[in-house]
Amino acid sequence: MEPSGGSRDARLAVTPVAAVLPAGGSGERLGGATPKQFCAVQGRPLVSYAVRAMERISWISDIIVVVSPENIETMKSIIEQYGHKRVMIVKGGITRHRSIFNGLKVFVENEFSNHLLQKPEVVIIHDAVRPFVEEDILSKVVMAAKEHGAAGAIRPLVSTVIASAADGCLDHSLERARYRASEMPQAFLFDTIYEAYQQCTDYDLDYGTECLHLALKYCNTSAKLVEGTADLWKVTYKRDLYAAESIIKDNLSQQVCVITNVKEAVAQVGFLLQESLKSQIKVEAVSISLSKNDSHLQNIFSGQCYNFICVNDRKYAIQETQQLVDMLEKSSIPLLYPVVLILVHLDISENISFSIGMEELTRIKKFAREVKKKNILVYGLLIQYK
Amino acid sequence: MEPSGGSRDARLAVTPVAAVLPAGGSGERLGGATPKQFCAVQGRPLVSYAVRAMERISWISDIIVVVSPENIETMKSIIEQYGHKRVMIVKGGITRHRSIFNGLKVFVENEFSNHLLQKPEVVIIHDAVRPFVEEDILSKVVMAAKEHGAAGAIRPLVSTVIASAADGCLDHSLERARYRASEMPQAFLFDTIYEAYQQCTDYDLDYGTECLHLALKYCNTSAKLVEGTADLWKVTYKRDLYAAESIIKDNLSQQVCVITNVKEAVAQVGFLLQESLKSQIKVEAVSISLSKNDSHLQNIFSGQCYNFICVNDRKYAIQETQQLVDMLEKSSIPLLYPVVLILVHLDISENISFSIGMEELTRIKKFAREVKKKNILVYGLLIQYK
Repeated sequence: MEPSGGSRDARLAVTPVAAVLPAGGSGERLGGATPKQFCAVQGRPLVSYAVRAMERISWISDIIVVVSPENIETMKSIIEQYGHKRVMIVKGGITRHRSIFNGLKVFVENEFSNHLLQKPEVVIIHDAVRPFVEEDILSKVVMAAKEHGAAGAIRPLVSTVIASAADGCLDHSLERARYRASEMPQAFLFDTIYEAYQQCTDYDLDYGTECLHLALKYCNTSAKLVEGTADLWKVTYKRDLYAAESIIKDNLSQQVCVITNVKEAVAQVGFLLQESLKSQIKVEAVSISLSKNDSHLQNIFSGQCYNFICVNDRKYAIQETQQLVDMLEKSSIPLLYPVVLILVHLDISENISFSIGMEELTRIKKFAREVKKKNILVYGLLIQYK
Repeated sequence: MEPSGGSRDARLAVTPVAAVLPAGGSGERLGGATPKQFCAVQGRPLVSYAVRAMERISWISDIIVVVSPENIETMKSIIEQYGHKRVMIVKGGITRHRSIFNGLKVFVENEFSNHLLQKPEVVIIHDAVRPFVEEDILSKVVMAAKEHGAAGAIRPLVSTVIASAADGCLDHSLERARYRASEMPQAFLFDTIYEAYQQCTDYDLDYGTECLHLALKYCNTSAKLVEGTADLWKVTYKRDLYAAESIIKDNLSQQVCVITNVKEAVAQVGFLLQESLKSQIKVEAVSISLSKNDSHLQNIFSGQCYNFICVNDRKYAIQETQQLVDMLEKSSIPLLYPVVLILVHLDISENISFSIGMEELTRIKKFAREVKKKNILVYGLLIQYK
């Protein structure tokens, strides 16, 4: 019987799991100078999405990112800039298999690391150029690897696969329904995949790409195949970078929380906003003082509500906004997809006109730039309300 | 020896060629209510791009679009709206193969058409959801089909292909280098593919998808495989619609032609514009009267210059702009990708201020909307130049 989500998580919590992300590719097919794993999508490098996808999962202890020697400094600065945790950078080899092998060695060979990491029971292998990997598929492949020794995500084939004869003509076409595309993530009992890499030939290391194949050939371990979601596809061509942006947009929450302070005129605007938005989006309004540690707000943060409209009647309430950002950061809201935070300054004074100083504008823009690194997109709005 | 472009075109010109575009899919994988071939990219349905890609090629005589019965009216209105020529709509069957078969029948069976079309020597089969197909690959598959009886575009595999055993575990993985993804366009001697469809079983018609396979199985014709470009990929998922937009943007011309009238002050601005743009984009400037049939401009139109900046000193010179649009339409500039046309109105009068009337704005917007259907994107700019 398939374990339920709850018991599966409990079983994973006690299994030491690590992840190896090969990120050494040169991105030739993308047609640009920058390897695709370092190309920005919505301003953030692809590899940072993949790392984030791993680090937000509590039961993954270590994340090994394998990059080519010339990109080690780039990777270091990405880790620093986006505040990634539990990540170790390892120098890659000249092929994909050699890079993955290097990534595995940090758990068993002293020379590859200043301090030897705890050897995991199960290791996940996932591409840096598949930014959208959900906990569900990761836990499925890990559980299947525990049981079968190896497991990997698969997808239906989009095109028919054919074999060509020596003369460049069709030899035969494969019956599409019988075959699948092998995708990532994959997971292995650490000892199984490590042994496979130790046993395999130089030819395998230089020309092969498929870890499931090594496990089968050298350890007689037949991987369990797990149906994955469409979002697991690999960013290969330039068009895929645009597609990645589209997936981020598709995954922005369709729920919004309107937060106002307790002043009557402001709370009233929050109520009107809720009324006018509720036909288009799921919306909730709360009137609270942000400085108090409000339990209602805490409940929202631990729930599914991802976007916020924050209405106040003081100009540029950066301090209060900072508190909100801190709460967001501490919350369990997964930050794989951005949170949109709209700051509305409501001018309810009797003055006919007001002006915005350049200094204040600069301060707000700087703040927005800072929190963007935390995947929180801040927009400001100034409204005269008489 | 490979024929050169010129002689290939000459040989194609005397070969009767038609195209069948199956557009009957339901678009389940896209996850929306609209079948993907009718989804808009930059405001135009995908199928219209595929039709345009065919109709701009002079040696393709007839274009058969096969749609499911419920979409015939939609397809009719698309043909009307975008002014497609040489297109016939045919009612599709319940599977892809049955739809293609119906498309072929209009050349030989009276009951499928009011008037029987001339039977082509070679028929191209291409998906309505592969909007970017260039003349080069079309002529390659047609020439190869003339020689071999069948031909199809192929691409390298992006993922490893695997076969699963009955227990859902890995049976074996295919060596990626030995296999290819079979893509579109494909081309066939008409008699070969038509015979294959007549011979094949109901099982083939209901469960098969690959025309190359039918030609091999029933006519012993082994298709020539032709390496295609990355842009031939099939729009399958929602993310692919965004990717299609990115390809359009990537293919916008990086060449611009600045057109001014002969008045000195205006010509001077055109010259300055050329100077400041030329470090970023290939730019040419001409000063002419648009009402004259200028041979220099005609040369530009028959060349590679796709975008235009049109500077004038009369407000809203719609008439002159209309002449430019007419020239563009008559020109050989391929309209698969949009032409950008920026209208700059230069105010060189001594008046300090000017205003834009709503009526004039409405007229310009209406004009821009009209020519957008012709794939010409019009932008207006008003500049005070003292």
